[in-house]
Amino acid sequence: MNTALQEIVKMSDQGATTPTPSAAPAPPAGRPPKVGNRGRASGPTDSDNFEAADIPELEFFVAPGPRGYPPLTEFLDIWDVDMMRRRDETNKTDHRTSLYHCDNLIVRRGQEFQIKITFSRAYKPNEDKFAVEFVIGTNPQYSKGTYIPVFPTKTQQSSWEGRVIQSNNNVVIMGVTPAANCIVGKYHMYVAVQTPFGIRRTKRDNSRDLYILFNPWAADDAVFLDDEAERQECVMNELGIIYHGAYDDVSERNWNYGQFNFGVLDACLYIMDRSEMPITNRGDPIKVTRKASAMLNSRDDDGVLVGNWSGDYTYGVAPTSWTGSTDILLSYSGSKMPVCYAQCWVYAAVFNSFLRCLGIPSRVVTNYYSAHDNDGNLKLDIILDDNGRIDRSRTKDSVWNYHCWNECYMTRPDLPTGFGGWQVVDATPQETSDGMYRCGPASVLAIKHGQICFPFDAPFVFAEVNSDVVFYSRKKDGTLEPVKVNKSHVGRMVLTKAAGSDGRRDIIDQYKFPEGSPEERTVLEKAEEFGCKQEKSSPPEADVDVVLPTLEISVGDDFEFNVEFVNRSLQKRTVEAYVSGSVVYYTGVSSNEFLFKTPTVTVPAQKSVKELMTIESRDYLSHLVEQANLNFIVTGKIKETGRIVTAMKVVTLHTPKLTVEVSGGGRVNEEMMATVQFTNPFSFNLENVYLRMEGPGVMGLKSRYYSLLPGGSSLTWTEMFTPQRSGKTRVMATLDCSGLRQVSGQASVTVET
Amino acid sequence: MNTALQEIVKMSDQGATTPTPSAAPAPPAGRPPKVGNRGRASGPTDSDNFEAADIPELEFFVAPGPRGYPPLTEFLDIWDVDMMRRRDETNKTDHRTSLYHCDNLIVRRGQEFQIKITFSRAYKPNEDKFAVEFVIGTNPQYSKGTYIPVFPTKTQQSSWEGRVIQSNNNVVIMGVTPAANCIVGKYHMYVAVQTPFGIRRTKRDNSRDLYILFNPWAADDAVFLDDEAERQECVMNELGIIYHGAYDDVSERNWNYGQFNFGVLDACLYIMDRSEMPITNRGDPIKVTRKASAMLNSRDDDGVLVGNWSGDYTYGVAPTSWTGSTDILLSYSGSKMPVCYAQCWVYAAVFNSFLRCLGIPSRVVTNYYSAHDNDGNLKLDIILDDNGRIDRSRTKDSVWNYHCWNECYMTRPDLPTGFGGWQVVDATPQETSDGMYRCGPASVLAIKHGQICFPFDAPFVFAEVNSDVVFYSRKKDGTLEPVKVNKSHVGRMVLTKAAGSDGRRDIIDQYKFPEGSPEERTVLEKAEEFGCKQEKSSPPEADVDVVLPTLEISVGDDFEFNVEFVNRSLQKRTVEAYVSGSVVYYTGVSSNEFLFKTPTVTVPAQKSVKELMTIESRDYLSHLVEQANLNFIVTGKIKETGRIVTAMKVVTLHTPKLTVEVSGGGRVNEEMMATVQFTNPFSFNLENVYLRMEGPGVMGLKSRYYSLLPGGSSLTWTEMFTPQRSGKTRVMATLDCSGLRQVSGQASVTVET
Repeated sequence: MNTALQEIVKMSDQGATTPTPSAAPAPPAGRPPKVGNRGRASGPTDSDNFEAADIPELEFFVAPGPRGYPPLTEFLDIWDVDMMRRRDETNKTDHRTSLYHCDNLIVRRGQEFQIKITFSRAYKPNEDKFAVEFVIGTNPQYSKGTYIPVFPTKTQQSSWEGRVIQSNNNVVIMGVTPAANCIVGKYHMYVAVQTPFGIRRTKRDNSRDLYILFNPWAADDAVFLDDEAERQECVMNELGIIYHGAYDDVSERNWNYGQFNFGVLDACLYIMDRSEMPITNRGDPIKVTRKASAMLNSRDDDGVLVGNWSGDYTYGVAPTSWTGSTDILLSYSGSKMPVCYAQCWVYAAVFNSFLRCLGIPSRVVTNYYSAHDNDGNLKLDIILDDNGRIDRSRTKDSVWNYHCWNECYMTRPDLPTGFGGWQVVDATPQETSDGMYRCGPASVLAIKHGQICFPFDAPFVFAEVNSDVVFYSRKKDGTLEPVKVNKSHVGRMVLTKAAGSDGRRDIIDQYKFPEGSPEERTVLEKAEEFGCKQEKSSPPEADVDVVLPTLEISVGDDFEFNVEFVNRSLQKRTVEAYVSGSVVYYTGVSSNEFLFKTPTVTVPAQKSVKELMTIESRDYLSHLVEQANLNFIVTGKIKETGRIVTAMKVVTLHTPKLTVEVSGGGRVNEEMMATVQFTNPFSFNLENVYLRMEGPGVMGLKSRYYSLLPGGSSLTWTEMFTPQRSGKTRVMATLDCSGLRQVSGQASVTVET
Repeated sequence: MNTALQEIVKMSDQGATTPTPSAAPAPPAGRPPKVGNRGRASGPTDSDNFEAADIPELEFFVAPGPRGYPPLTEFLDIWDVDMMRRRDETNKTDHRTSLYHCDNLIVRRGQEFQIKITFSRAYKPNEDKFAVEFVIGTNPQYSKGTYIPVFPTKTQQSSWEGRVIQSNNNVVIMGVTPAANCIVGKYHMYVAVQTPFGIRRTKRDNSRDLYILFNPWAADDAVFLDDEAERQECVMNELGIIYHGAYDDVSERNWNYGQFNFGVLDACLYIMDRSEMPITNRGDPIKVTRKASAMLNSRDDDGVLVGNWSGDYTYGVAPTSWTGSTDILLSYSGSKMPVCYAQCWVYAAVFNSFLRCLGIPSRVVTNYYSAHDNDGNLKLDIILDDNGRIDRSRTKDSVWNYHCWNECYMTRPDLPTGFGGWQVVDATPQETSDGMYRCGPASVLAIKHGQICFPFDAPFVFAEVNSDVVFYSRKKDGTLEPVKVNKSHVGRMVLTKAAGSDGRRDIIDQYKFPEGSPEERTVLEKAEEFGCKQEKSSPPEADVDVVLPTLEISVGDDFEFNVEFVNRSLQKRTVEAYVSGSVVYYTGVSSNEFLFKTPTVTVPAQKSVKELMTIESRDYLSHLVEQANLNFIVTGKIKETGRIVTAMKVVTLHTPKLTVEVSGGGRVNEEMMATVQFTNPFSFNLENVYLRMEGPGVMGLKSRYYSLLPGGSSLTWTEMFTPQRSGKTRVMATLDCSGLRQVSGQASVTVET
């Protein structure tokens, strides 16, 4: 036993020959403090566009002599650097970035831009050595693509090409071509002169910072899109139309994407920085769009928009009230807090702004009757009781009347060839599916061909357009028997705005083959191989059809809802029917049932009989939620055969319009006037009414609040504005209050130079 | 203008003809309250194993008559239900679940189990109708697989098969075969008698709850594994060995997976419930393992374990201190808070417990020299300056000395055929990669064949075993020139415990073809097609090799480190070398440099010269971090040719052992004694010393704390224990303090019945 231990033995009052165990100290209560990255990584992740790296002005190759370092000032000196960043200079016009409200240079990768450097004397290519250096992030490294020197001579070139375009006395115009796969973001720029003793650099100057974007015009860029009309629409157009309503009664929302507005580009970069996405991945549109689909919603990561479908928007802006993305993006980057509130089209619209702003071609699409939250399962279950009436407590699946998502255009080098082109990305958080708070990019071509084994989230999107609605009859012993399978209800139509016009375009043929075609069958079999579960049974069809009317009704109308029973058989048929009408959210979730009838209808052989029903506005008006959709479901049992008949229909009630009128001016920098008018068509008051108005390129967001708009009364709101640029555009306005949502109007404006 | 508006005009002091706009009320400051699912979904997600659904005891088909409902008691009545759940009854022995410390019935799906029902009279198959009902979650539905009635007659069957095995007077033994793809979790069980007037059920009784697990023994189960030795190892074995250290000096950690311990199964189900994973997905091992890989770490989702590589574990248990998973799992399910702290093997070990507990075959594997945090990039960059010395400020990538992950066995119906079998899942959060706080399942076969276009996260795992280490020379103009590419450093060996023995097995051949084989080249090309970026240049090789010694050193040893320079050329070579030795974390991140020498070595043609270096313990001892790894890097430039030479080596210092001795007893229920002994081998004191000890099947976790263990002193710790079951097992102990980590010892125990 050595001395040290002798001591402890003496110290121990138990006289033991070993050190004494004692009670372990309790850790402090509550959450442990945040753990740093020490031991885990050699430094923090480089994921910031806005923090500058520290690049030295002088960098010596040699040790200091007796009089210190040699004076590098004897060599070529830089007097001035001109980024040629004015809106009308070739850099911005050639790169199609003149519209951005930003003083800095903005260019697209894979395409040359110019810099004018004034030296202290004429540049001598054989003697002088200099480089233009581009730096992004806090930890610039050549091998990571975050530090790129660009050289003016052919013999010495880095991953970005450089050349002297013009050399005139002291002034050199240098051409720089960023690699077509370079990082997209905000770079700092230096000019470095290399001398035998070391390097001398220009000082850091914020005005020389430049933004490099994706380039759909460059053949080598992963987002290259070889169609000028599509590029003008999907990159350059700020004016959006987003479709909603019902597939047989389509409504339109106008939207100001605002991708060129002041601060929007910085906000989009902030979103990526906030996600802590490594800078080095920011040149890959697959990774950028996937990350953004996660960051556009606030789930998991404190992203941009908080989803709310509840009807209570007290603590934010109602989803139906927004007119554009600018306010949302600037609010997020300003407050660094998620913005309240969004539903699917808000997610899709803001995502679209993000994508177009960074130069990724993108569009918003609307899928009518979208299967949702069912996690790649191809069945939506509707449970009927023994008599053919819907069992609402057991029917939990819902079909969204419509759902909006985004398509963006890119190659897919991560997949086998053939799956490039349009890709689905979706930022709406899928609450009840398997924690999917991001979705895509999923190749539209892969979805069409049932090749859903490829990333990302293709089975989910496949189900959204291909699910079957299965009606089950619940038997007394608790089991379910499928009695009707509706294969054509879901994915009825996918609409997007046509390129170059305000018309709509149905692109459902890009998602699936025609219903009933042999190709469609093959695709469903292929998808089934990859685990998509389909309903296999094909219960015998009833010989009575139920036909529901197509109606265009306005909120507050009384209307007739006539259910037609068509007997295709050669015998008389008696249908014991259940006709149910309920107010539904656009998510298909029912709120209140306002109509329930149980007619017994006798239909002679090969005849049709109409059951007439009158719906009065007082029946539904007090129950209306959100987007004023009425969902009618007719189910029933044919007495003679025991077969089940079903029919479903969503009727979207049209809301009153805002009248928007624009007058005066019509020229850049001349004042104009916009007038919004609205009359409360109801006998009841509207309270806490919000109005918003904006116009791409002509008017920033304006808003107004009325605490009370009495029944029958009118309001008139006038705003002056001064167009900043010429062209055709629109002024769009919305009105929103808890009693009446989704009221909008717009006026076209043509501004001459 | 109507009356209502007249009123408002009167009320308005401005006398305007329209309602008056006012300032919009400001939303309250701070975070908005949590938004519910109203309008979004028809109910909350069903994701809870422990909340019971409300199943009525009486369910009438008919309307009440004048005297109320008819008395169903006239029909068959249930007197008793026996789940036959004792450890020695056939249910548990046939289903291999006897080892679970749990009173409830535990069975595996796709395999019949028995229930004994005692009726009020003999059961008459032609008259009486009854069903055994199984219910899981809060919203049971037949079509979702969460409500399953099982019938005793051939004519009436649901998705689970039922039959009467024996009918003897009032007693019926019923056989129930859960579908081989049914939901895994905790079910409630009822017996329901169907009468013409309605259904009468047994009361809810917790003792009839049963657990249904995955079944690697059932051919129809997605986790079927047709190898009894592997099943015994990868499902039934509680005793684990996890490899660490260096590939040429492997160390072992003993681990008690404890998957059968009391409370562990409930804790595993709680993890899934906590993730809010929909109950309906819990039968799919792909979804379960993917979700669990996210939930095992606390990032994003408040999962099980908090990662910490910093060396400061004040607020929790040091990763090196754990001896098993039980304590971690029970602490998480008890406190509902993440447990502190874990590093990769802790994540892998607890994940392994989770998988084996639920019946998914799984094993922990260790990859030596694991490329990490580089997001599918196949290059790890080491930057040298002009002279060949490492530029530590620019070298940010690190190779982990080793990394542990899990493999689990299952079919992959979501992929084309051929990718089933072992799948990589990894719960260690990838801090600097693209937000990957989940990883896998990725098919090992797909990784081997470069088919990394299939989900999930295959490019990431591919890079972990296939990356190249690229040495660059940084030129004066800031660009980098690759000077050496080491293609065989990363993914040197993948070890796992052999089935049925305590030996190790290298399974690297399951991850890649032999280095330099034609197949290997094809695979790398295939992976490149899918976007894995590889270093293309093959800089000319130097004709001088640097050979570093293989050493087995203990902490505190002085030792010789001899660097051998082998000149393969026919001329003299002069190497200007940099020899650097630093203390590193197992993540490859450097802490302190303790050795730096710059010898110039002249080697005659075709000779070798050794440069002798003596490392004294005082050089490194005060700098040691964590797992006591020393990293030696030799780089240099050959004067005559300008070529670069490099060599790297990790030396793992062996820590002193704990002596564990077991004596007495050796029979079930006879008391035994375990003695742990340790001598502080250093001259300095060890403070805040924690000891832990446990033994699968024989001893629960015991721990002890010593505030001081003086230099040179010894401790002896004795614990009594009573084995609960027979067989071969081990008692394992660890000692951990900030001055000395990763000290362990174990003793074998054989217990006779």
